[in-house]
Amino acid sequence: MLEALRRPDLIREITLQPVRRHGVDAAILFSDIVVPLAAAGIDLDLKPGVGPVIAEPIRDPAAVAAVPVLEPAQVDFVAEAVGLLVEELSGTPLIGFAGAPFTLASYLIEGGPSRTYERTKALMHGAPDVWHALCSRLADITLTFVRVQVAAGVSAVQLFDSWAGALSEADYRRYVMPHSATVLSGLAESGVPRIHFGVGTGHMLPAMAEAGADVVGVDWRTPLDTAAALLGPNFAVQGNLDPAVLFAPWPVVEAEVRRIVAEGRAAHGHVFNLGHGVLPDTDPEVLTRVVALVHEVSAA
Amino acid sequence: MLEALRRPDLIREITLQPVRRHGVDAAILFSDIVVPLAAAGIDLDLKPGVGPVIAEPIRDPAAVAAVPVLEPAQVDFVAEAVGLLVEELSGTPLIGFAGAPFTLASYLIEGGPSRTYERTKALMHGAPDVWHALCSRLADITLTFVRVQVAAGVSAVQLFDSWAGALSEADYRRYVMPHSATVLSGLAESGVPRIHFGVGTGHMLPAMAEAGADVVGVDWRTPLDTAAALLGPNFAVQGNLDPAVLFAPWPVVEAEVRRIVAEGRAAHGHVFNLGHGVLPDTDPEVLTRVVALVHEVSAA
Repeated sequence: MLEALRRPDLIREITLQPVRRHGVDAAILFSDIVVPLAAAGIDLDLKPGVGPVIAEPIRDPAAVAAVPVLEPAQVDFVAEAVGLLVEELSGTPLIGFAGAPFTLASYLIEGGPSRTYERTKALMHGAPDVWHALCSRLADITLTFVRVQVAAGVSAVQLFDSWAGALSEADYRRYVMPHSATVLSGLAESGVPRIHFGVGTGHMLPAMAEAGADVVGVDWRTPLDTAAALLGPNFAVQGNLDPAVLFAPWPVVEAEVRRIVAEGRAAHGHVFNLGHGVLPDTDPEVLTRVVALVHEVSAA
Repeated sequence: MLEALRRPDLIREITLQPVRRHGVDAAILFSDIVVPLAAAGIDLDLKPGVGPVIAEPIRDPAAVAAVPVLEPAQVDFVAEAVGLLVEELSGTPLIGFAGAPFTLASYLIEGGPSRTYERTKALMHGAPDVWHALCSRLADITLTFVRVQVAAGVSAVQLFDSWAGALSEADYRRYVMPHSATVLSGLAESGVPRIHFGVGTGHMLPAMAEAGADVVGVDWRTPLDTAAALLGPNFAVQGNLDPAVLFAPWPVVEAEVRRIVAEGRAAHGHVFNLGHGVLPDTDPEVLTRVVALVHEVSAA
């Protein structure tokens, strides 16, 4: 799997599929949040049905000090894929992709996926210097990774802090936001729009925005008009159809799409999307219908 | 495991352990949310490391119609355990225990634990009559289960809707709240305080309260003073130490406990607790220190 993620032809092919099949308005670079970590030399694997598994979890100052720097040349396969894609997409925007420092750190510290983040939180609270040193290195890796994508031609960047919602807003602001801000502010002068994504982050949307986003991802738990009121007039929203709703009959899906487009009009801008990733058993035909409906409704 | 949960002597022993070892101010009945379902005759198992597994998932009207009624005599082992406990606790309150209809329904529909609740949400949205019929039967089972506990002498009841936070507030109010209200309002005339617990429910705490709670569980994502402001003066709060914080060094735990007790003073009442269950690798000694510290700080 990790090997496939290093092949520009496969990245190109998989990135193009949703555009071809569903007619979405933008492509998002096919990758995985651990790609820059593996490229930098961290020993890890993507196990099918599990996710990232780290050979030697990072839990002490020595391990943090050994986290390598990412050289742009180590992700030239991504630059090559972006180049191919920008040419082939001929005008359809390509969104760059990267994992945020907290979510990356959680995998490196836990050794793999977690539901509870106990080692992550123990390190964050118990050894904040070590925590900040790790996240600082991860922010540098991430910034290099997204800058390579921007240089190669992506039109926007999405930073995935998928699991940041496991934190309180206070802990997010203290332990995470400075590092996400390193990445997002490091992109500011490029001028590309920055989308900041998380799940279960309804209690800390303004903090996700203040980290340096132009567009804030919102999951289905928070209505977009509520999110817009929390965020104020300077931020657009992305979301927020519940991926599980796609398993309901079409009239239910249609009503939800119409509701979400209507609620999204309260925001400064709205990128229609699911509130989280497409679930594996989703009927792709439903996705096609959703895209067509969003086009129809948002044009009205 | 299910057999152990039917033995009054074991229920008694395990329920007493935290009182003896940590000196907590109340005991909570050792049980599992599927106990009344199994007692009523639904074929299920508790698999170690997995959780409840349902032999024949319930997904259509015929299966819903076959969900049995719970007769009080089918849970007389719980009444017996409560009787033993009330005598042995001699004044220390015993809190009754039950799963709420949504969380029960999610296991029955999915067939086991889920992260995404896709079949649950598909049924809820796609066949609301079937959904409501199922939840109505589950509310009846749950109400019988908690009434048996009240009759046997519990001093309070906690209704666990552990996974309700997967829903938006609008869906919670439409599809779930009426059934939880059946249970909670059915206890009103007994006069026992009703605690309503969930995780990730910061976006819908008032709805959890309106379902008929006296005390609303709050996880670590929402500060208790924020929760108190959302809930108004008629509700107490329960929570909200992050169970993962117990893995940090003691000074971190101490600071968190002091912060939580201070923030809880904003509420009409505060039951100190973790924001979710104790994690398996937790050092029990830390729990003992937390209880002693809460006693010390809250007496001040």
